Amino acid sequence: MPAPVLSRRDLDFLLYDWLDVESLTSRPRFAEHSRETFGAVLDVSADIATKHFATHNKKADAQEPRIGEDGRVEIIPEVKAALDLFSKAGLIAGGFDEAVGGMQLPVTVLRASMAWFQAANAGTSAYPFLTAANAGLLAAHGSDEQIATFVPAMLEGRFFGTMCLSEPQAGSSLADITTKAAPEDDGTYRLTGTKMWISGGDHELTENIVHLVLAKIPGGPAGVKGISLFIVPKYFVNADGTLGDRNDVALVGLNHKMGNRGTTNTLLNFGEGTHTPGGRAGAVGYLLGEPNKGLSYMFHMMNEARIGVGFLATALGYAGYQQSLEYARTRAQGRPLGAKDPQAPQVPLIEHTDVRRMLLAQKSYVEGALALGLYCSKLVDEQQTAADAESRSRAGLLLDVLTPIAKSWPSQWCLEANSLAIQVLGGYGYTREFDVEQYYRDNRLNPIHEGTHGIQGLDLLGRKVVMQGGAGLALLGETIGATVAKGLAAGGETAATAEQLHAAVTRVGETTAALWSTGDPALALANSTVYLEAVGHVVVAWMWLEQLLAVGERAGAFFDGKRAAARYFYRFELPRTGPQFDLLASLDRTTLDADPAGF
Amino acid sequence: MPAPVLSRRDLDFLLYDWLDVESLTSRPRFAEHSRETFGAVLDVSADIATKHFATHNKKADAQEPRIGEDGRVEIIPEVKAALDLFSKAGLIAGGFDEAVGGMQLPVTVLRASMAWFQAANAGTSAYPFLTAANAGLLAAHGSDEQIATFVPAMLEGRFFGTMCLSEPQAGSSLADITTKAAPEDDGTYRLTGTKMWISGGDHELTENIVHLVLAKIPGGPAGVKGISLFIVPKYFVNADGTLGDRNDVALVGLNHKMGNRGTTNTLLNFGEGTHTPGGRAGAVGYLLGEPNKGLSYMFHMMNEARIGVGFLATALGYAGYQQSLEYARTRAQGRPLGAKDPQAPQVPLIEHTDVRRMLLAQKSYVEGALALGLYCSKLVDEQQTAADAESRSRAGLLLDVLTPIAKSWPSQWCLEANSLAIQVLGGYGYTREFDVEQYYRDNRLNPIHEGTHGIQGLDLLGRKVVMQGGAGLALLGETIGATVAKGLAAGGETAATAEQLHAAVTRVGETTAALWSTGDPALALANSTVYLEAVGHVVVAWMWLEQLLAVGERAGAFFDGKRAAARYFYRFELPRTGPQFDLLASLDRTTLDADPAGF
Repeated sequence: MPAPVLSRRDLDFLLYDWLDVESLTSRPRFAEHSRETFGAVLDVSADIATKHFATHNKKADAQEPRIGEDGRVEIIPEVKAALDLFSKAGLIAGGFDEAVGGMQLPVTVLRASMAWFQAANAGTSAYPFLTAANAGLLAAHGSDEQIATFVPAMLEGRFFGTMCLSEPQAGSSLADITTKAAPEDDGTYRLTGTKMWISGGDHELTENIVHLVLAKIPGGPAGVKGISLFIVPKYFVNADGTLGDRNDVALVGLNHKMGNRGTTNTLLNFGEGTHTPGGRAGAVGYLLGEPNKGLSYMFHMMNEARIGVGFLATALGYAGYQQSLEYARTRAQGRPLGAKDPQAPQVPLIEHTDVRRMLLAQKSYVEGALALGLYCSKLVDEQQTAADAESRSRAGLLLDVLTPIAKSWPSQWCLEANSLAIQVLGGYGYTREFDVEQYYRDNRLNPIHEGTHGIQGLDLLGRKVVMQGGAGLALLGETIGATVAKGLAAGGETAATAEQLHAAVTRVGETTAALWSTGDPALALANSTVYLEAVGHVVVAWMWLEQLLAVGERAGAFFDGKRAAARYFYRFELPRTGPQFDLLASLDRTTLDADPAGF
Repeated sequence: MPAPVLSRRDLDFLLYDWLDVESLTSRPRFAEHSRETFGAVLDVSADIATKHFATHNKKADAQEPRIGEDGRVEIIPEVKAALDLFSKAGLIAGGFDEAVGGMQLPVTVLRASMAWFQAANAGTSAYPFLTAANAGLLAAHGSDEQIATFVPAMLEGRFFGTMCLSEPQAGSSLADITTKAAPEDDGTYRLTGTKMWISGGDHELTENIVHLVLAKIPGGPAGVKGISLFIVPKYFVNADGTLGDRNDVALVGLNHKMGNRGTTNTLLNFGEGTHTPGGRAGAVGYLLGEPNKGLSYMFHMMNEARIGVGFLATALGYAGYQQSLEYARTRAQGRPLGAKDPQAPQVPLIEHTDVRRMLLAQKSYVEGALALGLYCSKLVDEQQTAADAESRSRAGLLLDVLTPIAKSWPSQWCLEANSLAIQVLGGYGYTREFDVEQYYRDNRLNPIHEGTHGIQGLDLLGRKVVMQGGAGLALLGETIGATVAKGLAAGGETAATAEQLHAAVTRVGETTAALWSTGDPALALANSTVYLEAVGHVVVAWMWLEQLLAVGERAGAFFDGKRAAARYFYRFELPRTGPQFDLLASLDRTTLDADPAGF
């Protein structure tokens, strides 16, 4: 019996004891739901994830997708089998309206469901999540005909979706994409260009693939203002829903990655003439929404995707924590310090203090990150369904500020958790006999995609904390302040914890003001990654105080474990931010002034 | 033309400008040497490493050793070809006496030579380094006959060596090994038992393999006091030097690792009866030195091996730094902050401040670690060849204190450098198209083998800083104090740097005293890993002040680069130790008291 990849006990604590998701069922959108229906979704998710996703995680890593002799992408059959089960369970449509066959689940519950799959198998679970995001974008901005043509087929898992943003010469710099979309007389466009890093870009898992492609209409504005979004199906869809000819989208090659190998990642050529729809080259695309608004549509999806990356990082960290915990409890090695008798039996690893340090660190990272991810998901639910406009708006504002942290913090610290999991297992952890080395490789992707760590720092310090005259940062401070007030009222160790958080959040405000008081954006932003990391730690410290308050006075090992992890975070982790804020407040120019010639 | 894996410019600076290794040539052992002979060794090392080791690094990773149908270990042919060149260049014997065909190179120069191979190909370079360590141990403790039988053949590269310590149930806990060595009437022993994690344990790269095996003679003392060391050749060696029958050593399986795949790593059975020397089962072994002293012999080798692991981690970090630097200089992406024209050309990555941060961090880690490794190597030279006994003894004492840091610090921070190298390359860095992902995987081994990070912490705080009434720690403080005095005398930014180092080293002393004032070893050692990390940062800060002093007032990009990296380390890195010392001084019990039931 392998260790579970997540903890249902912890999820239930976070969802019900802390976030009170049950209260969402009083809102019209979720009226059909109850704690029982939420529980059923989590049950079926854990069941399918454990029995059908985790079971081929290692095999999909060892036998990554390849291009067969016929030019098609070959993927081990377990992937399609698992995904068919996922689709049949209705999970792609989990968050969609009942009108299109969805379950209308709260995002908070849906994310918890998804986390089971991410923890069980990062590679396989990427396909339906990408498809759901793609369908969501189509549903939000597509015409009725576009929606009818593509969305139901995607929600049923008959079509999968992709997002085609990057190009070989334009990774993070979307202003520099060169894929061209030339208008045709019939209202369609012909696309030509090359797209890089396209996850799920080609495969035989589904009947069809729906690419959402960023491209520029000739004559439009330069840079990001001239980017439009197009639907480019792999196969055309006839009016009756049957599939027609191949569109002019060609697989150029697969990227071979360190981890996350189960998700095929591709280089695609649009319009090179491999196929000739209507007798000539050019990939036929359908404009989604209005011209030149492609990036704004895509950004909505990318904000969700950032939360999703945070969850993926968290899930991988959680799975590694669980595996190393199981190992530490069962593997006997060495004796306590000071044990004199070499013939006494060896003790379980968890009896060694330093092993407990590594487990506490992991626990504080992965449970802190999970709390943050679910908190942000709840904000999405609030933004979408809160009764009054002001509540919706405040939730959206807070979510905007937290999004770069929800993406970057788990990507950094749950990767560190995976490293600690390897360390607990020692030499065994470094072998492919266990799963922790794969989690570590898989997780290393997360600080890169959907905006690198550095880009998240620029987003947080350069945009989010200054937007609307600093309203977002003020709201964050106010919200944390409310938690601090409850903590102070609780007395005892919780009050001391709250004081520590109060001091830290005060430094966030002071430091932000000091940075922007310079009037020099290059100087203010020089160490924005350090700012991102420091504020991230303060935010996760807040999540731990929130959890402590939800624990309250309750007795039992589970609650004592939460207390220990919170204590660890406040004593070993939060203090790391002191030197970071000092550095930022000093307006240090070391990185800004470093001469490229000196390296 | 790929980026070089090391910097000869930096090596020359460290060896000559800083450590003045040329002065060693005035000592009798090195009298035949000169800066020219040292340079020739470094030239040939860089040449062979670049042309014959780096060239198959990726292939050896992708096609790891496997067991063929005939039960033999199959390794890609480039490995043997490269190793034959290495052996023919006399490099296995580099540090050995001329009497046995060695070059009598100073350890400092030899380590610099070895680093070229480690940076070029961690997997392939492990074989000869292990063999040299094995031969060194044999030469130090073997009988004349044992030495004559094995050592020359190893130095010529005809035999390779292994170290067989761990067993499946006894990784770090050598007290628990159960391999048995039963004495025979002819003075030999018959060994039975299973050894795990044996690098180079079986292969066809050489005619023979010489295993050095820890085992217990029945009836001896329990625990580590009853461990003896045996020579167990794969093939017996006849009196005339020809090879005889197979000994009873059987390959059970290969370990499949995340990285470091080029080095075959094995599970070996001794004496299971696969082969029957003299007509019966049992691996024939020859006692090395005296009975029950095996661990003390092995520890001498393991101290060298720890320095070697530090160099391996450093070399991998250095290679990644060089590759990411080359990429940052040549890859254009994005525009400077505030650039308004989307049609202006993209700029090289190194123009972005956060990319420079990642390069400066790497530079400060890998050049700081290289300095530390070479400093410790110079201490070995001092210990072995200084004119007076007191100098030799002081060098040995300082080396004892620094060894756990020289092993652990590069293993932690040069791995972090590899992660930053991936980050500089972004998505490309995550693919196997570049080398940085392999460096990261290879380097993750280093915090594990030759004593985990946690074990190094216990060694430093539990043994090294308290031995001889704290003489080692006092000597470290005194030695750093001498550097601080020079720094203060230099004035300017160097003096400010020296003041910062003085404050940090003062905290090391205070914190150590506070920890041991408790009289409770379990409490004192509860956070010994944090202590290891904090003291490690102080020691590397010292290495940077040393480098600043060696730079002096000289002008030029290379020297400015050293200044920038030192500044980075003192502003971004050394301050990390503040909260660590605070935690340690508070005698925090969080990890000590954490209840295993709460996880």
